Order: sequence, then C-alpha cells, then structure tokens
Amino acid sequence: MTGTPGDICWGRNPVIKLLMDEPSRCLKVIASKTMQRGTLDQIASLCRAAGIPLQAVDQRALNAMADGASHQGVIAVIAPKPMMGMADALGLLPKPPSRALAVLLDHVQDPHNLGAMIRSAEAASASFLALPLRRSSLPTGTVVKTSAGASMRLPLAAVGNTASAVREFQEAGLWTVALDAGAAKSIYDAPLSPRTLFVVGSEGKGIGRAVASACDETLCIPIAGGTGSLNASVALAVAMFEWFRLNCAMA
Amino acid sequence: MTGTPGDICWGRNPVIKLLMDEPSRCLKVIASKTMQRGTLDQIASLCRAAGIPLQAVDQRALNAMADGASHQGVIAVIAPKPMMGMADALGLLPKPPSRALAVLLDHVQDPHNLGAMIRSAEAASASFLALPLRRSSLPTGTVVKTSAGASMRLPLAAVGNTASAVREFQEAGLWTVALDAGAAKSIYDAPLSPRTLFVVGSEGKGIGRAVASACDETLCIPIAGGTGSLNASVALAVAMFEWFRLNCAMA
Repeated sequence: MTGTPGDICWGRNPVIKLLMDEPSRCLKVIASKTMQRGTLDQIASLCRAAGIPLQAVDQRALNAMADGASHQGVIAVIAPKPMMGMADALGLLPKPPSRALAVLLDHVQDPHNLGAMIRSAEAASASFLALPLRRSSLPTGTVVKTSAGASMRLPLAAVGNTASAVREFQEAGLWTVALDAGAAKSIYDAPLSPRTLFVVGSEGKGIGRAVASACDETLCIPIAGGTGSLNASVALAVAMFEWFRLNCAMA
Repeated sequence: MTGTPGDICWGRNPVIKLLMDEPSRCLKVIASKTMQRGTLDQIASLCRAAGIPLQAVDQRALNAMADGASHQGVIAVIAPKPMMGMADALGLLPKPPSRALAVLLDHVQDPHNLGAMIRSAEAASASFLALPLRRSSLPTGTVVKTSAGASMRLPLAAVGNTASAVREFQEAGLWTVALDAGAAKSIYDAPLSPRTLFVVGSEGKGIGRAVASACDETLCIPIAGGTGSLNASVALAVAMFEWFRLNCAMA
C-alpha cells in the first residue's frame, strides 16, 4: 500500500466529489471488484478524464487498506498538495538560454528513495520533479516526511507515459540524460548541459528501454571497480550536484 | 533499539563468552539494573577492556528488547562481522603519496543513513569507515540490508573518542575535512586532497564542536538558496564523489 490512513479518502460520494472538484490531489483510486456497475462506470470515466490510475481489487484487500473505515467499495489515495500537469510544469522552466534543471522518475518504487530524491532535487535547484502515477511510489504524506518537507515546496508533475514526457522535455529545450549504471559514458566525460533533465529508473529494473532510447544520452556515475552499486537516490544526487557545480556553485 | 532479534545474544554465560572470545563482534552490552553484582562487575570489566559500551536499563526495557528470550539480565548487540580496531584499520590505507579516502562518523543516529553511507563509501573507494559505538546507530544486520551488502565488504572500525580519531587520521597523513552545512568554504573552493578523511555529524545536531575543531578544515556542499537542506548521507556521497571525480574517475 502506498500511504498511511491520513493519505486516503473513502466512500462513494467523497471519492466522486474529490474526482470532480480536486482531481489534481487524487493520486490513485482503488475500487472493489464487486462494486455496483453504474457507480464504477462513473468513477472510471472521471479517472480517465483526469489521467488517474484506477485499480480493481478484492473486497478483502480494500477492507485492509481502509483499516475499518466504511469505504462503500472505493477509496482514493490523496496527495498532500495538488499535482501539476506537464504543460503547467514545463512553464516553470526558465526560458533558454537560462540554465534549467528538472527530474523525471521512471517508476521509482521506494517511498524513502522518492522522498530523498525530492529533497536533493530541491537543494540542487530543480524547477520540478515529474513522475508517473502508475506502478510508482506516490508523493503521499509519508513521502513529505522522508523529504524533510521538500515535497510540499518543490512542484511535482504527474505524467502518463514516461517516454512521451521525455519528448515534452526535449521540446522545452532540455538535454535529456538517462542515468544508468551500465552506460559506457560517464557524467564527467563532457560538461553537463546548462539545461538538463535527469531521468532515473526503478531500483530493481533500472530505466525502461523505451524511456532510455527516447533520451538524448545515457550516462553512468563511475564507481570503484569490484564493489557494489549506488542507491538510485544517491546516483541522482551525485549527478544533480555535478550539474549544480558546473552551472551554479562555480558560476 | 538498534537491531532485530537476529542481532542480539542473551544470557549471562553466552554474553561473557562472546566478550572473551569475540569482543570485536560485540557492539554493545545492555544489562538490567537489578543484575547480580558480581556478574555485572565481571561483564563491566570485560567491556572496559574491549572498549564496548555497557548500558544499564530497567528490567522491563530489557524484557522488551529480548522479546521473550530468557535473558538472565543481560543481552549483547552483535555485529554480523568483526569490527576492526583503529590501528589495524589505519594499516589498510595506501601509503603516501598514494591517494586514500576514509570516512569517520560522529554519532550518526539513523540506521538507514548508516547503511546508505557505507554503500556509497564502498562505491567511492574508501578504505574503511570508522564510527563510535556509543550514542550511534550500530552496524547490525538491519544496516547490512540497507547497505545492500556493502557493510559486509567494507571494513568498519570502532573508535572510542571521535576527536582523538581525527588526530589518528592526521598522523596517518590524511587531510581531515569536517562536512558542515554552515561552513563558509565549499568542497569546490579548492581541489580536495588526494588523501582525504570526511567527517560527518549526526542528523539533528551536526558535527560536534571538539570534532570540527580537530579537523584541518570545515567545508559545505553548496545548495540552492532558500530551499531545504541535504540529508547527511547525500551530503557525504556528494563530497566523496567529488573526491572520486578529482582523484580517480578523471585520472
């Protein structure tokens, strides 16, 4: 499950009202497979319109998530602040030739990593962080805590398809860099562009093939031979602070 | 509490045997305040000889830690592998003028941070990581997991007094750098020495004053103005990989 009890809203009417009035605060809807057809259709069409994932689960799983609340077959996972759409978020980027930094996550699973990434991204002066709402850790209240509050300050954007989002960043004039431990080139081989997007994959599987090939470049963080590997949030921080060193700290 | 049930050994004879046969695997001893005087004296003198912290607690607290085990008034927290003494650990450093990297922790509290620091230190080619056993998160089995196994590979050294340890590193020919968000100079203001020790403070209080003033230099990681702060393990990783970039990756 993605959140604590404070992160959910439950019941047919509250969830429908949330989807109609504040869809940007709704991260995910979870409905019972045995829910009444008409209500489920209404919820599904509201979710579809707002790009919010809808997941059907057994009644028993829903009971466990609702933790005793009278859920009437449906709960919604709520963000502590509204998620931005990509169009609005891209508007936050300084216009060329100003330097600009942004981060796109490709299905990061661990809420501690998500919180750590948001905290480091804010400190490295990223304009915003974008992430898909499906098959990802979501920016719930738990993540606010692990980000030391940064997730309430740094703008967060919801993306549908991660590879399409890479192309939107390219159209906004960012050089798009996939971080991958297996890459042949390193972040030090050439100076990082003053306008950079870093794309990070999930902890286990790394970055998806379609996403990596949509990027302009795939780069690694060099590490000592014969040792372990870097945590995904550490790799992102090292890359962002190399960008920050070149473009801000030393400027 | 510092560990999971797999991290402790309990009972008078098993703890005394551990302290006599494998003191380097014993991180801490916790005894009941109501323990029989003679046995407690024997345990205390074994702990003193090996530099292992001994903590006296209420019987009830000990019961909770032992989780049903028949503890007979004493438990020991065990490391999954032996801790090194400082003399042996310093012997692992390449001799001058070879480059060398080491890390000293000044009472880091969070086991996730400890695991993350060990993982990044190994990847940045540190020779070892040193930490005090008092008032610190300890390298138990929990930390092995969060370090992705790196804590079983990277040598770990136990120190008594952190400020004295700084002076031992100086005698071994390392330039000692305290990392502190409030420092006036940054890690980019001058190239980091090829032989560097990074010292990191606890998450809440930062680095102790005596420890910072024992160091050759106090440096910060520059971050974007008006934002939050860096997690201690991220700050250490950024500093270590700046050292690695200058001394290994670009070499």
